[in-house]
Amino acid sequence: MGTDGAPAPEVEGTLGALGQLDDDVEVILVGDEDAVEAQLELHGDIPRERLGVIDAPDRVRADDPPATVVRRRPDSSIVRGLRLQAAGEVDAFVSAGSTGAVMAASLFILRRLEGVERPAVGTVLPTAGDPVLLLDSGANVDCKPVHLAQFAHLGHIYAQDMLGVERPRVGLLNIGEEPGKGDELAQETHRLLRGDPGLHFVGNVEGREIIEGRCDVLVADGFVGNVLLKFYESVAQFIIGLLQNALEAEGGSAPALDLQEVFRVLDYSEYGGAPLLGVNGVTIICHGGSPPKAIRNAILEAVRSVRAGMVQHLAGDLASASTFRTPA
Amino acid sequence: MGTDGAPAPEVEGTLGALGQLDDDVEVILVGDEDAVEAQLELHGDIPRERLGVIDAPDRVRADDPPATVVRRRPDSSIVRGLRLQAAGEVDAFVSAGSTGAVMAASLFILRRLEGVERPAVGTVLPTAGDPVLLLDSGANVDCKPVHLAQFAHLGHIYAQDMLGVERPRVGLLNIGEEPGKGDELAQETHRLLRGDPGLHFVGNVEGREIIEGRCDVLVADGFVGNVLLKFYESVAQFIIGLLQNALEAEGGSAPALDLQEVFRVLDYSEYGGAPLLGVNGVTIICHGGSPPKAIRNAILEAVRSVRAGMVQHLAGDLASASTFRTPA
Repeated sequence: MGTDGAPAPEVEGTLGALGQLDDDVEVILVGDEDAVEAQLELHGDIPRERLGVIDAPDRVRADDPPATVVRRRPDSSIVRGLRLQAAGEVDAFVSAGSTGAVMAASLFILRRLEGVERPAVGTVLPTAGDPVLLLDSGANVDCKPVHLAQFAHLGHIYAQDMLGVERPRVGLLNIGEEPGKGDELAQETHRLLRGDPGLHFVGNVEGREIIEGRCDVLVADGFVGNVLLKFYESVAQFIIGLLQNALEAEGGSAPALDLQEVFRVLDYSEYGGAPLLGVNGVTIICHGGSPPKAIRNAILEAVRSVRAGMVQHLAGDLASASTFRTPA
Repeated sequence: MGTDGAPAPEVEGTLGALGQLDDDVEVILVGDEDAVEAQLELHGDIPRERLGVIDAPDRVRADDPPATVVRRRPDSSIVRGLRLQAAGEVDAFVSAGSTGAVMAASLFILRRLEGVERPAVGTVLPTAGDPVLLLDSGANVDCKPVHLAQFAHLGHIYAQDMLGVERPRVGLLNIGEEPGKGDELAQETHRLLRGDPGLHFVGNVEGREIIEGRCDVLVADGFVGNVLLKFYESVAQFIIGLLQNALEAEGGSAPALDLQEVFRVLDYSEYGGAPLLGVNGVTIICHGGSPPKAIRNAILEAVRSVRAGMVQHLAGDLASASTFRTPA
């Protein structure tokens, strides 16, 4: 029930995902049952044996403080969906609801993996090279160096399991190349990452280097991560708009350029949703403005996470990484 | 002597500026005299009566710590040029040298305006609306709320004098709309700005809103400001590159679109250099990669700053603004 046009994009995206998935994968739609069924009726040829609907009559409001959602909105799709996962009835949860609410409910219901102080939201950014996983992208502010060092490990495993990178290059978002550059957080985090034998740390990555694809995992405090992410989305739209205006002004002589194809690399919906990493389960958070394609891709991503055993790998990595050991 | 191709862009930019300026404006080139004269010889019709050359045989190296430049490199163009201004022989200083060195030398030689704790580097960003002055854009990290509140005042006066905005809208870069959003720095800065009668504070501005031109002055810690600025420059280049590749792939049917014209709004060299605000004088810092056009525009900007009396206005505003009063 999280997208702006809910539940239409959720339903259409789910049907798209089911069409691409093996027969042994089932999806359960958790939401206002009447609204969901009404949407389903608009589509023919529904694989009912692989598609369940569970009623969640309540809804998280924009002004609900995230920390109160589990208690105050037990019948929302967020809380009911996550409880299904905690109960082992499903393996993963996808939502386009409020990031804060999904995160808070996931922490409470799924719990954190042992040793993780702050689970992080990762976002895959398109670059001129391979895509880069940025984390944290908005869930955690006022981070300490140990939090960023933990994000690096969470991203390392995600990049291995989900982006297919054997030895992920981990970069630290910073404002200069040398180790001594940046604010106190960046300087101390640099020291931690450089001394971590479990990571392939490639050093500081400046704002202008992100787009070059110099690393597979980019670690940052959620404040700067969120600013960067939202700016990226909007600036791509802005530049494409400039171009479209210019092409339209050319009138009849406009080229047969398929702008959508040219800029497909910038289309976030290609990448599905943002994983919440560090909880004991799979939570994928989608944009409120997600089109069906983004929902479909988020579901495919959730399935791949489960099949890859990502959460088990995370737990194993954390157990061996010094940044996750509880201080004596 | 600061650009990558120094002193060629400096010389050509200076001649361009002189061609556009009134006869009563003179420019003094401070640098390696032989190299400068050799460049000048490549150009005909030099207005020698308005163009001086002062030798500065030494050069700031990339590995010189900024704080040491005044003492160790007294014969560099940065130090000699700024000393000319401190002595009243010139009214403004333009350099494409290292930002850290230019800033440190400006603080030492020109001194801070009374009450200013941290002078800030402002950068004018193109948006879909009017351009926005972002400050700080990299000179100050680990800022405290009072620093950001001071940046707001520095930007307020700059926007009035240089961007022609009578009542500049001041925004705070943040990761949510509501006052309680963001990290500790953003929350406390929001409180200070909201309670400041000398500013027209329009509230938090999120990453995705920057490009909309919702404010004239955007206040941020230099860490996030620098990441944003450098990312903006690179992402614009990246997207334009995607498009050019696609157009080239179209071959003969490519349109008569002048990409440079379409994206002129994104061309930083149109905006000249970045002012260092809060020192007792005019310092404009240019990109190391500045083409002659950027140098020309930075000189024109310096002249406008002097003619507008910006430094005097800053001093007057600071004297009345509570955020600049020395705590009792």
